[in-house]
Amino acid sequence: MTRPLAVGIAGLGTVGAGVLRLLRDNAALIAARAGRPIEVVAVSARDHSRDRGITLHGLRWVDDPIALARDPAINVVVELIGGANGPARALVESALDAGKPVVTANKALIAEHGATLAARCERSGAKIRFEAAVAGGIPVIKALREGLAANRVASVTGIFNGTCNYILSRMQQEKLDFAAVLADAQAHGYAEADPSFDIDGVDTAHKLAILAAIAFGRQVDFAAVHVEGIRRVSALDIAFAEELGYRIKLLGIARATEAGIETRVHPAMVPLASPLAHVDGVNNAVVAEADPVGAIVFAGRGAGAGPTASAVVADLIDLARGRDTPMLGVVTASLENRKSVPMGAHRGAYFLRLMVVDQPGVIADVTAVLRDHGISLESMLQHGRSPGEAVPVVLVTHITRESEMRAALDQLAALDSVLEAPALIRIEPA
Amino acid sequence: MTRPLAVGIAGLGTVGAGVLRLLRDNAALIAARAGRPIEVVAVSARDHSRDRGITLHGLRWVDDPIALARDPAINVVVELIGGANGPARALVESALDAGKPVVTANKALIAEHGATLAARCERSGAKIRFEAAVAGGIPVIKALREGLAANRVASVTGIFNGTCNYILSRMQQEKLDFAAVLADAQAHGYAEADPSFDIDGVDTAHKLAILAAIAFGRQVDFAAVHVEGIRRVSALDIAFAEELGYRIKLLGIARATEAGIETRVHPAMVPLASPLAHVDGVNNAVVAEADPVGAIVFAGRGAGAGPTASAVVADLIDLARGRDTPMLGVVTASLENRKSVPMGAHRGAYFLRLMVVDQPGVIADVTAVLRDHGISLESMLQHGRSPGEAVPVVLVTHITRESEMRAALDQLAALDSVLEAPALIRIEPA
Repeated sequence: MTRPLAVGIAGLGTVGAGVLRLLRDNAALIAARAGRPIEVVAVSARDHSRDRGITLHGLRWVDDPIALARDPAINVVVELIGGANGPARALVESALDAGKPVVTANKALIAEHGATLAARCERSGAKIRFEAAVAGGIPVIKALREGLAANRVASVTGIFNGTCNYILSRMQQEKLDFAAVLADAQAHGYAEADPSFDIDGVDTAHKLAILAAIAFGRQVDFAAVHVEGIRRVSALDIAFAEELGYRIKLLGIARATEAGIETRVHPAMVPLASPLAHVDGVNNAVVAEADPVGAIVFAGRGAGAGPTASAVVADLIDLARGRDTPMLGVVTASLENRKSVPMGAHRGAYFLRLMVVDQPGVIADVTAVLRDHGISLESMLQHGRSPGEAVPVVLVTHITRESEMRAALDQLAALDSVLEAPALIRIEPA
Repeated sequence: MTRPLAVGIAGLGTVGAGVLRLLRDNAALIAARAGRPIEVVAVSARDHSRDRGITLHGLRWVDDPIALARDPAINVVVELIGGANGPARALVESALDAGKPVVTANKALIAEHGATLAARCERSGAKIRFEAAVAGGIPVIKALREGLAANRVASVTGIFNGTCNYILSRMQQEKLDFAAVLADAQAHGYAEADPSFDIDGVDTAHKLAILAAIAFGRQVDFAAVHVEGIRRVSALDIAFAEELGYRIKLLGIARATEAGIETRVHPAMVPLASPLAHVDGVNNAVVAEADPVGAIVFAGRGAGAGPTASAVVADLIDLARGRDTPMLGVVTASLENRKSVPMGAHRGAYFLRLMVVDQPGVIADVTAVLRDHGISLESMLQHGRSPGEAVPVVLVTHITRESEMRAALDQLAALDSVLEAPALIRIEPA
């Protein structure tokens, strides 16, 4: 067996401690699969004294993480600091420029600086690997980049954020409102004190931008992702979804259309026949549609110390074995110039819920607006009667262009008989 | 871009033609991902004139497939002849001995000769890759061998045979008997004229033996797999399964127990909460339980020209990129000596259906036999009454040792009041 792969880890939070623990617990097995031992020789973290539930005895401490990049005794840098910029970015760039391979779980960094990182890798010959950045323990980057490499991908659709999926699952199962479940999730550590990155869809968008680049062989284009979060999903709409045969999930969707690549993150109605409808709690799942393989589903834990460490160490094993793949599956010169299409060009079916005054003529006004925008209806639901009171009216459209839907929505919101901002949720095919 | 990877294909059935078509249809994309073009330069098949729906113009025909192994103009041999021995084995062994890499979809060959093939590869330095041998288009070998390489696997459970799953799905959905669905499946090309390899579980056992070797880092041990097929699954038992909250699936299960590795293929009751319960038709699915990643699910098309070609070409791309992995994930010297345990040592819950004469004392006789073998009951079902007639009695046991269950079954079958061979179906946890 050749000499060990010497690793320096920057960032010793939950994931960093998990990586240390995994490399110790499964050391023999990992050495056999890597063809050589993988040994952590140095660490860098702000807090030396915090109890991480694991001994750090024998590890060299480095105060400035950048020093790991320059240290000739370190073969690979593992970046677990996080954040698209700041010390994480500085460390990764220093390591790559020094020709040193990097393993990272940092989705923000890859999503926001993917293009320049790929160029840096090619200049220096260094590798960057980031399996842990998307869907945690599910090896979906390897699957798309290598396992399905012979395929032309038509779409990648997934549940990428465990916090959002946990909240939506509990809202559905317990018929609770968003705010109540969020507060409870925060109390139990399933949601951050500041949950906006998760619940506003940004985390999902980071992951989607990365997967879309690999799936479609193009540069990472985070700026083009249309992003909506789950704050406005209501218990009422979840109940209507149920009645119509759907579950509401926060999806990340990347799809090749005639106009270009559509990338969007938003709550969506998912038919019960879809495997994504049954992914509950903190789990993640990804469905890839590709030619000639057809639909492939991957599901598992998308976050947490164990699953994330599993992905980080898998990347280290690849590096130890010398298994080589360009950052996005192909060299940057072979990336295709497949442009992103704006959300206004999206075509799909829509669920629209209006709170209206229950009085004669309201439905006629509403449907006239839709007609004027060329929007045809598949179904309408209005339960019960409360003359003069506010009642919900649900409209499900046939395939419609988003820009028309938006224009109609503005007009509907302006009607006197429409009492609140309309709720609009896109319906995805099975 | 470097010079093309020159491929010789032996066997031009559905899959061989699919590989040719895929390499042509997605040539540019495959070249970018492989870092070089992949070109078929020679083929070998018995029938030169059959219409395969694809032009073979420009390809060199070789009558003796062994010649592909020795041809210096060929970089990689793709073996799609099939069969554990005969020309397929001779070709693969010749190629490996000549140091030439092989890609194959041949599960029988890998399952029955895995140990000697691994040794051959190490002697000559040649590679053998066989993603297409298990679960068709689902990249499950790559996922287990590389993506989950940091994990200690506890179990791998899957639906690996599309024909059996199609038959069981239709029996369940349409309440039909096995024979009727099999005949219909044969008429529509979903089952072979001689379906025994599929429906007797042999195909599933081949695939399971391969996955178990990779998951547990040991030699392939096909002989140790306990194999039962689906011929004796009845519409009656499927209906009882439904009543009890289960689906009946033909599973391949490899599990690490304290006594060693259990590998078994048999119809099983799968709880509706398990993702495997909802895999219908010709689809395949695999659930891996591993530490620290947890449960990971993979699902997709397990057979057919497109999915199989996807896996074959993914292997070619890995070879073109020089991505290197020992055949079973670790070198043979690092394989662990984890012995297989006999089926008699299995411990699990059982569904037992007896056809008994409906008369006083029968249940007392039956339960006395179970008591004498230390088998305790979780539940019993007997619907309706037909005094003096044959009626089904269903017994669900708590966790029981297989050897005790078998001994009890022999005694039950010998009771005068038990009218047919008892039906025994193992129950798997969720």
